[in-house]
Amino acid sequence: MAANSFGKVFRITTFGESHGKGVGAVIDGCPPGIPLSEDDFVSEMARRRPGRTPVDTPRSEPDRVEIFSGVFEGVTVGTPIALFIRNQDVKSAPYEILRRLFRPGHADYTYFKKYGHFDFRGGGRSSARETAARVAAGVIAQKILAPVEIRIAAYTLEMGGIRAEHIDLDAVHKNPFYCPDVAVVDKMGEVLSRAREAGDSIGGIVEVRITGCPAGLGEPVFDKLSADLAKGVMSVGAVKGIEIGAGFGAARLKGSQNNDPITPTGFVTNHAGGILGGISNGDDIVLRAAIKPIPSIMMAQETIDREGRPARLKLEGRFDTSAVPRIVPVLKAMAAIVLVDHYLRSKSLW
Amino acid sequence: MAANSFGKVFRITTFGESHGKGVGAVIDGCPPGIPLSEDDFVSEMARRRPGRTPVDTPRSEPDRVEIFSGVFEGVTVGTPIALFIRNQDVKSAPYEILRRLFRPGHADYTYFKKYGHFDFRGGGRSSARETAARVAAGVIAQKILAPVEIRIAAYTLEMGGIRAEHIDLDAVHKNPFYCPDVAVVDKMGEVLSRAREAGDSIGGIVEVRITGCPAGLGEPVFDKLSADLAKGVMSVGAVKGIEIGAGFGAARLKGSQNNDPITPTGFVTNHAGGILGGISNGDDIVLRAAIKPIPSIMMAQETIDREGRPARLKLEGRFDTSAVPRIVPVLKAMAAIVLVDHYLRSKSLW
Amino acid sequence: MAANSFGKVFRITTFGESHGKGVGAVIDGCPPGIPLSEDDFVSEMARRRPGRTPVDTPRSEPDRVEIFSGVFEGVTVGTPIALFIRNQDVKSAPYEILRRLFRPGHADYTYFKKYGHFDFRGGGRSSARETAARVAAGVIAQKILAPVEIRIAAYTLEMGGIRAEHIDLDAVHKNPFYCPDVAVVDKMGEVLSRAREAGDSIGGIVEVRITGCPAGLGEPVFDKLSADLAKGVMSVGAVKGIEIGAGFGAARLKGSQNNDPITPTGFVTNHAGGILGGISNGDDIVLRAAIKPIPSIMMAQETIDREGRPARLKLEGRFDTSAVPRIVPVLKAMAAIVLVDHYLRSKSLW
Amino acid sequence: MAANSFGKVFRITTFGESHGKGVGAVIDGCPPGIPLSEDDFVSEMARRRPGRTPVDTPRSEPDRVEIFSGVFEGVTVGTPIALFIRNQDVKSAPYEILRRLFRPGHADYTYFKKYGHFDFRGGGRSSARETAARVAAGVIAQKILAPVEIRIAAYTLEMGGIRAEHIDLDAVHKNPFYCPDVAVVDKMGEVLSRAREAGDSIGGIVEVRITGCPAGLGEPVFDKLSADLAKGVMSVGAVKGIEIGAGFGAARLKGSQNNDPITPTGFVTNHAGGILGGISNGDDIVLRAAIKPIPSIMMAQETIDREGRPARLKLEGRFDTSAVPRIVPVLKAMAAIVLVDHYLRSKSLW
Repeated sequence: MAANSFGKVFRITTFGESHGKGVGAVIDGCPPGIPLSEDDFVSEMARRRPGRTPVDTPRSEPDRVEIFSGVFEGVTVGTPIALFIRNQDVKSAPYEILRRLFRPGHADYTYFKKYGHFDFRGGGRSSARETAARVAAGVIAQKILAPVEIRIAAYTLEMGGIRAEHIDLDAVHKNPFYCPDVAVVDKMGEVLSRAREAGDSIGGIVEVRITGCPAGLGEPVFDKLSADLAKGVMSVGAVKGIEIGAGFGAARLKGSQNNDPITPTGFVTNHAGGILGGISNGDDIVLRAAIKPIPSIMMAQETIDREGRPARLKLEGRFDTSAVPRIVPVLKAMAAIVLVDHYLRSKSLW
Repeated sequence: MAANSFGKVFRITTFGESHGKGVGAVIDGCPPGIPLSEDDFVSEMARRRPGRTPVDTPRSEPDRVEIFSGVFEGVTVGTPIALFIRNQDVKSAPYEILRRLFRPGHADYTYFKKYGHFDFRGGGRSSARETAARVAAGVIAQKILAPVEIRIAAYTLEMGGIRAEHIDLDAVHKNPFYCPDVAVVDKMGEVLSRAREAGDSIGGIVEVRITGCPAGLGEPVFDKLSADLAKGVMSVGAVKGIEIGAGFGAARLKGSQNNDPITPTGFVTNHAGGILGGISNGDDIVLRAAIKPIPSIMMAQETIDREGRPARLKLEGRFDTSAVPRIVPVLKAMAAIVLVDHYLRSKSLW
Repeated sequence: MAANSFGKVFRITTFGESHGKGVGAVIDGCPPGIPLSEDDFVSEMARRRPGRTPVDTPRSEPDRVEIFSGVFEGVTVGTPIALFIRNQDVKSAPYEILRRLFRPGHADYTYFKKYGHFDFRGGGRSSARETAARVAAGVIAQKILAPVEIRIAAYTLEMGGIRAEHIDLDAVHKNPFYCPDVAVVDKMGEVLSRAREAGDSIGGIVEVRITGCPAGLGEPVFDKLSADLAKGVMSVGAVKGIEIGAGFGAARLKGSQNNDPITPTGFVTNHAGGILGGISNGDDIVLRAAIKPIPSIMMAQETIDREGRPARLKLEGRFDTSAVPRIVPVLKAMAAIVLVDHYLRSKSLW
Repeated sequence: MAANSFGKVFRITTFGESHGKGVGAVIDGCPPGIPLSEDDFVSEMARRRPGRTPVDTPRSEPDRVEIFSGVFEGVTVGTPIALFIRNQDVKSAPYEILRRLFRPGHADYTYFKKYGHFDFRGGGRSSARETAARVAAGVIAQKILAPVEIRIAAYTLEMGGIRAEHIDLDAVHKNPFYCPDVAVVDKMGEVLSRAREAGDSIGGIVEVRITGCPAGLGEPVFDKLSADLAKGVMSVGAVKGIEIGAGFGAARLKGSQNNDPITPTGFVTNHAGGILGGISNGDDIVLRAAIKPIPSIMMAQETIDREGRPARLKLEGRFDTSAVPRIVPVLKAMAAIVLVDHYLRSKSLW
């Protein structure tokens, strides 16, 4: 049944498969008057695109976003905005050997169990290719938030066990890992190279930081801002965990440590991560997502075929060694989409 | 705007405030033919109820659930089931001193910023009292899942830094902390007492384990089973993080370590936590939620009043020292509600 | 699946069966600050109640509305408002003879085909009893609309072929048929009595007139104000048609006749019925609903039993002779609910 | 806010404006395994297309439907289906004179009041152009219904006061008016020509007849099959009324006349129009929609400009003289979309 939409007031519906004509999104609920052109998508799409670093998969579509509707003379008019990103580099051949075997760690097995088939041509709807549509939608979300000074940054807090010790947002887009700490960039690169040489892969942690968010966004019960951020972030394939503010660390704090004292000029600390009772408190919203190591590895793996018989799978070809850098703009997009939805909800009558 | 419902096919809407006539839920989408009586709610409601242990708040409503509709001759008929739980022990007086001050760590401040008022009588809609309605709805969810052998267990994995080393489900309901490891129950009690004596509070980690779930539940894009579980769990007040399977630990694993080998008899390991690509894989679904220390502490705290002037707040009265044990049945309920929703969705035509 | 809610921003969920404990509604999305007490429901509930005229069914619950949540110190607080109306006069006995036979014109047959059973105790969820919850929700909707001068009137335009020639809103509540033309009230009564003596029933037309509605309510595509009014009105059991403005008459007009000329002081005519392109134009919104004759008649009817064998059914007991007067407040409520939903939607950011 | 979607399980979202790049739809919830190619849309799109008869507007895009996703090797795969229809013949010039004046009977005035602007280039989102996307979506709906023998016919029951006396479905597509009665086709043509020569326009009535629908589709309360059909049909621009079965005629029948007797072989009559209590009864579903005369006429009309000053408007160019024939495939599509939605809902677990 219908399950490809997200959001209530700012609502996106994505479509497209990894090996079809392309992927896209319809954004329903974008306010009128937002300047928007196809060029606005270029930089963010480039950040998600594979082929940026030597260790990435060389599949390298330009990922040009076409606007089919909702914009007139460079400005949104309040009607649905349809975006389309054509697939370019579709070679189904390399995947043909996978027609029979389930790749461990991928959705092949569960897809097959659910639908009686799976899309051996690269994951179909479960493919990370779908997230290109989210990044495009996220660009629009960020264009809505920019004039009200809500800004979203995302970066690689940790990859392969190497953790950024300082957060310098200016550094993020000056290295291929979107790492905010220049001091550890080389170490990240080494860990990545080592894993790649071993035919293995690595995971990491992405942090998203939202500044300028006014107090009052989010609903007190099910549609807590934190709950919708959790759903949005966890709906991205490789994410296995999300925490806000002190997160799992809060489990070991005392109340006297974890409570953020309130002063006339703001909160003294931010263990809350900017959200109290599901509603933004005006402080920075900080969340972290755990990214699992990419399941496509070059090492032989134990698996079964469609008939349930044991098999060994050794993937060939070239794959990303970590999903982490490319997932950074995706999580940024999802955070922006959730924020806009709640921002627009907060602008209703009450 | 309307934001008090959760679920698509099995849809719950909760209502009620902490100090009004009561709280309740309407469950829309419960299949017919499920045996249901008011007695079915007793044991689960008792688990959520305050006043179970010497260190809990003594507010102790019986929390009797009334069924107003949807059941005829002891069996559901497929129509909406309205449940109501009357508030009994409502004394607004102790909270009157809070009329002016925001309690740090509570939703008072954000509520005030959002609505221009806050319910000083115990949190209003943001109160944990609302979760009584969720527990009641969760009982029905579990009654739907039981015949198909999907069973949900929840327990205190960690409290105040004391972690269960063994998971013995039989032990869970034999101690007041719902701890699955008898060997650490006393230590948990000590930590809790010590915090209480200091006027402080402690947090912890709740683990939910779902057994018997068939492969195929969950949708591949936004409505991943993991994403809906994340939203459901994170929509509970004190939760600051959620992880599935290896969770944040996966961020430091290699692909060769994290991938669960597949054999004809099942997965060799369960780093996935029972969910691949957002769809259940037939293995146990395992999730953990980080619970922050309860913000109501007896120690003096820095805060501000409604006019933004600095103030010191020292709460009096008796409060829970940890939300952890009481939140166990709430998270169990939320997991059950999400599971039923996806279970029923999986039973549609395709 | 979940199908008992209506509205997007002002969302009502009804529950309850004709012969259970009662019926009710949860209203999610009512703005805060609306004065509301249980007394506010009395007059409108009385209008829907049976037993008002000698020819009505004597089942006469007081239909007292209880407020369970969402109101504090006489004012709504923005949280869900749960309303409950207990069933009082439940005698299942008279209907026992219907356990086997489908009543022509009722939902017995279709209910049975859909669910494998039907509620012989008076229609269950299909019973007109459910509309009591809608009337209660409509009272709240009207309390929101009143301060902004949007007013809704509903009346019997025609019953048993007798049509009101003049619309005098002051007359409506001074006769038991809610007829706006005192000159035809007696004739309506005669037709009704005659039908009743014959053991037969009659239909009619209810007109709803909304004054004071500003231009701009409604969405241009699917959620046209007209489309939502159509759904709301047609979702009431006995309604078999709805038209807006010139309605079916417009099918025989020329464009030069049907177009409403626009002048600086407003529209010269109102063939549009106050809605153009699905959006309110500031003129009175006028709609008419066709009400079928009540299917419960005292004359012998041809039918079948559950096993499909032919049978003759002769109902005994006392039933309404026409649904028309009692349906007037129900359609008024549905119109108010639709209007509030769109009114609140129009108050969002854009 | 998001308001461009329709349906719950089979959910369509349309996008596109009359003078942008094109219009389209995303269908979310189409089951897998339905054969589908771009050629499948040709005949139905041709029926909606202008320029079929001498009296129609000569704007004549080929209206080729492109499939962007959801189909693999000629068969749907269960993922969202994105359809796109490029606008071809976009000349904004003729409408430039309308930049200042509101066309009576059109949405210009209400659009302006709602959004502060209106799309003088042909109605924008309110344009009938948007219905091309609905017709395309309806083709898919009908492909789902065909194998289960649910068939939908639509035809011009009446135009300009000329009414079909016999319903011969074979005749419908053999005349440009989609009139099911060959005996009145010429008369319809004469009325149409006469109106056109006078610079005027005419309305009519479209009837939709659904055969083969099993009993049991529709929900008992708000989501009655009749209510959803009413919304779907009324959401089409020119529709001012809808009735089911005896419709407004039922208002003047007695219960003894209107009730359809039930026999072992079916209903003796069909005043119910195939729907009882909102649920299909297995008989033909019959509905009629009142179509207003097209508001674009060549005669001078009284109106105002954007500043509210009186003006006279005399349209030039060529317009359809009646919306009736072209609306026939649109209403057929909407009926199909509603039917599929409820058909799929009826296939869920209960």
